Amino acid sequence: MAKTNPGWFFEDYSVGQVIDHAVPRTLSGGERALYHALYPARHALYSSDAFAQACGLPSAPLDDLIAFHTVFGKTVPDISLNAVANLGYAEGRWHRPVWPGDTLRSQSEVIGLKQNSNGKSGVVWVRTSGLNQKDEVVLDYVRWVMVRKRDLDAPAPETVIPDLSKTVAAEDLVVPAVLNFTGYDFTLAGEPHRWGDYEVGEVIDHVDGVTIEEAEHMQATRLWQNTAKVHFDATFREDGKRLIYGGHVISMARALSFNGLANAQMIVGLNGGAHANPCFSGDTVKAWSEVLDKAETGAPGVGALRLRLVAVKAGAQPGALKGDDGKYLPDVLLDLDYWALIPL
Amino acid sequence: MAKTNPGWFFEDYSVGQVIDHAVPRTLSGGERALYHALYPARHALYSSDAFAQACGLPSAPLDDLIAFHTVFGKTVPDISLNAVANLGYAEGRWHRPVWPGDTLRSQSEVIGLKQNSNGKSGVVWVRTSGLNQKDEVVLDYVRWVMVRKRDLDAPAPETVIPDLSKTVAAEDLVVPAVLNFTGYDFTLAGEPHRWGDYEVGEVIDHVDGVTIEEAEHMQATRLWQNTAKVHFDATFREDGKRLIYGGHVISMARALSFNGLANAQMIVGLNGGAHANPCFSGDTVKAWSEVLDKAETGAPGVGALRLRLVAVKAGAQPGALKGDDGKYLPDVLLDLDYWALIPL
Amino acid sequence: MAKTNPGWFFEDYSVGQVIDHAVPRTLSGGERALYHALYPARHALYSSDAFAQACGLPSAPLDDLIAFHTVFGKTVPDISLNAVANLGYAEGRWHRPVWPGDTLRSQSEVIGLKQNSNGKSGVVWVRTSGLNQKDEVVLDYVRWVMVRKRDLDAPAPETVIPDLSKTVAAEDLVVPAVLNFTGYDFTLAGEPHRWGDYEVGEVIDHVDGVTIEEAEHMQATRLWQNTAKVHFDATFREDGKRLIYGGHVISMARALSFNGLANAQMIVGLNGGAHANPCFSGDTVKAWSEVLDKAETGAPGVGALRLRLVAVKAGAQPGALKGDDGKYLPDVLLDLDYWALIPL
Repeated sequence: MAKTNPGWFFEDYSVGQVIDHAVPRTLSGGERALYHALYPARHALYSSDAFAQACGLPSAPLDDLIAFHTVFGKTVPDISLNAVANLGYAEGRWHRPVWPGDTLRSQSEVIGLKQNSNGKSGVVWVRTSGLNQKDEVVLDYVRWVMVRKRDLDAPAPETVIPDLSKTVAAEDLVVPAVLNFTGYDFTLAGEPHRWGDYEVGEVIDHVDGVTIEEAEHMQATRLWQNTAKVHFDATFREDGKRLIYGGHVISMARALSFNGLANAQMIVGLNGGAHANPCFSGDTVKAWSEVLDKAETGAPGVGALRLRLVAVKAGAQPGALKGDDGKYLPDVLLDLDYWALIPL
Repeated sequence: MAKTNPGWFFEDYSVGQVIDHAVPRTLSGGERALYHALYPARHALYSSDAFAQACGLPSAPLDDLIAFHTVFGKTVPDISLNAVANLGYAEGRWHRPVWPGDTLRSQSEVIGLKQNSNGKSGVVWVRTSGLNQKDEVVLDYVRWVMVRKRDLDAPAPETVIPDLSKTVAAEDLVVPAVLNFTGYDFTLAGEPHRWGDYEVGEVIDHVDGVTIEEAEHMQATRLWQNTAKVHFDATFREDGKRLIYGGHVISMARALSFNGLANAQMIVGLNGGAHANPCFSGDTVKAWSEVLDKAETGAPGVGALRLRLVAVKAGAQPGALKGDDGKYLPDVLLDLDYWALIPL
Repeated sequence: MAKTNPGWFFEDYSVGQVIDHAVPRTLSGGERALYHALYPARHALYSSDAFAQACGLPSAPLDDLIAFHTVFGKTVPDISLNAVANLGYAEGRWHRPVWPGDTLRSQSEVIGLKQNSNGKSGVVWVRTSGLNQKDEVVLDYVRWVMVRKRDLDAPAPETVIPDLSKTVAAEDLVVPAVLNFTGYDFTLAGEPHRWGDYEVGEVIDHVDGVTIEEAEHMQATRLWQNTAKVHFDATFREDGKRLIYGGHVISMARALSFNGLANAQMIVGLNGGAHANPCFSGDTVKAWSEVLDKAETGAPGVGALRLRLVAVKAGAQPGALKGDDGKYLPDVLLDLDYWALIPL
């Protein structure tokens, strides 16, 4: 037992601590093929080298959520193995695309701590960076989780609550220097809708649905080397159910959002996110989006949309998010707030 | 709702119309690995660079059905999203192999229209071409589907029924210029049977069977970016079943046919095909083939076999296709008529 | 029927016979991605080009068990299609890493035969070699199986029982010439435990578990082009269950053993192995290891551990292997004896 990783407990963290997460990973066309087999991902910029080249890129990058899940997965053994709840995300930015052949590793800095009043657990805030083989940051984001204490008698740390932006400001988004949407081919991309066609407040029902399978969510979760037992071991929870990794729902909803947001090609900012309710095999996932904000960028032909992406179970009412009590409705799985780049 | 793709309806088509289908796709070794994980595909020309090089090719191409499914999948949003039935295929030819790194897109021309007498739907014939990044045709075929009308009052178009060949003539098959089977290694290929060993009328029971899983047919269908809801959403059909994409059955049967047709390496012609009965998860698929015709080709050591490939449910009698009423037997899933290249 | 492969029967083998197995296979990053999606594989040397380069290798090799399964899978049509039981392994050695782009084929020599006293079957011993496109041996091992006779009246062959080593001697292990663990990064590898931290007799419970799914074991088994019907066809066995390929359990257990043996990077020897009990979909697989022996190697910073890797069903007691009757306990699935390289 002594040689296996018990995970970190609340009292193991201190503000300012830097954690180098294990198991760097080289990504290839194989990870992309699997991603496109596991999700109905069809954004043309990530599907076709020729399309990406027409937008100024050297070739099609890997889907932005491949980068996210890979970076996130590495943090699990050190951050969330003993997490009671995944509480939120903020200040996420994609700094540069990830290409087949890149090797990613993850590093986190503890930026906040607050012991719960019950003394049994506490909240840990970390800023996680994904780095490629050249030590360039490809992605960073803040995440906070509630983590159990090992020793209930361990003293509470000084409370430090980080001051986090509600949203990433449009001017802080990183647009790849070479990106150019002035020659964008809307026919090949699959829809005619451009930046100017979307209005703040507009809700889009993405119509399509996918029923979740055990073999699919487990393959996806392993692909990101996420090791949390609860996703794989049917004997771990008392009810015999395997909890779906929240990132599986994020990717499923994002892929479903192609139908209505086919041109929202590139994810560049993560403003916030909540895994509203657990998802299990057999659930049919659908999605709707709301346009929260719009911004121009300096890049030629490139606009930005701030979008709320909501994953729901089949039967939910598109646009319905919370009840009168302010709580998420029971058929809401995910409420994600992100920025995407779209042709003007 | 206005921004999502409702698909095309019968009155949206006109003869001569050319449709550029969306979402080009770059294929890699990842798609091949998945294909070989999802089907028991073992034809040596597509499995081994060394074997392909010994046959004159620069390396192993991607399986011919990867090209077919990729090209077909792109047409679904424009051709068959509102299709009531997939009626047939004709005049299919593979013009050149597809290699890892190639980017495929699809284009269809409407070549026939006939409104049904009930006025609620009609038949649409399209000739679809798959093009690579050099705009070379890699594959083309005719397909016809029955499509619903949106507006039942829309006037019927002039009836145009294309004059289609019953089979692709052997002299019209395209054999890659470099292909050479004179040094073919039958041991490495897995069977000793050559062109001369097959007789017209011969029936081969391929013996092996595979039980279909939801997670596998969905992964396959997504890999081709086929978006038809009926394959993914268990809430879509009243019976709660997900219909298996017909191409999944084609690939499964073709892969099973290795056992008895290991040397029928390269698919070059598609004469016709019918999805005789629906297939669902839990069905066990088996296959048998009948030799329909034989031809020589100009290429060194290369013969052609015209084969009927029949997918059935376990328990079916090999060779039994239709009942006395001329209809397919209930345990027949697929009846496919194709040309394959085999060493003389 | 005549054209399909009925497999070999006991009387078809003779000592000294060399069998070239069919369907060579070129491996790519796609096979690696699938391997990492199907198993929780996280050994850093096989996950990251950068990590492998820091250990002297040109890039990350494919996981050693990818090589094993690929080589093994090719032997199935000729060796074990009519096997009643897979009896054992011995004298397995990995001679050089396998890289994306390599093409593997398999060759077996019959080295032993013994007809059973019932006259209905016999034991066949083969030494199988996996060869790359340069005809270099990448792997060889001895395997013995019990095979049925086709013709019960066929005369018994002369009994030849090969003289097999109980274990591969440490000095016979092949360590890649360039391998160097002196600059090994334990943080990136995921655990601090080095060669000196393990003691002979030590038992490590790997804690994590994975519940087996039909779609996953079938994908894995097809990936190695293993054709045994019993893994794929739910109508083949009377109980309607698909037997899990023993190699799926090997890979699952090895991947689970990361937790406690993260630095046991490279598999170089296979001393023996038994598939103690059958595994089926729905079983939750866990694993424990016992340190059987330790050895130094000539390579800089590289030690070797001889490990017993035991796969069990959830609920089994770590360390418990056999009952008082000397038979494997019913919840033991696999007992594998191998050598791995680990930093000193």
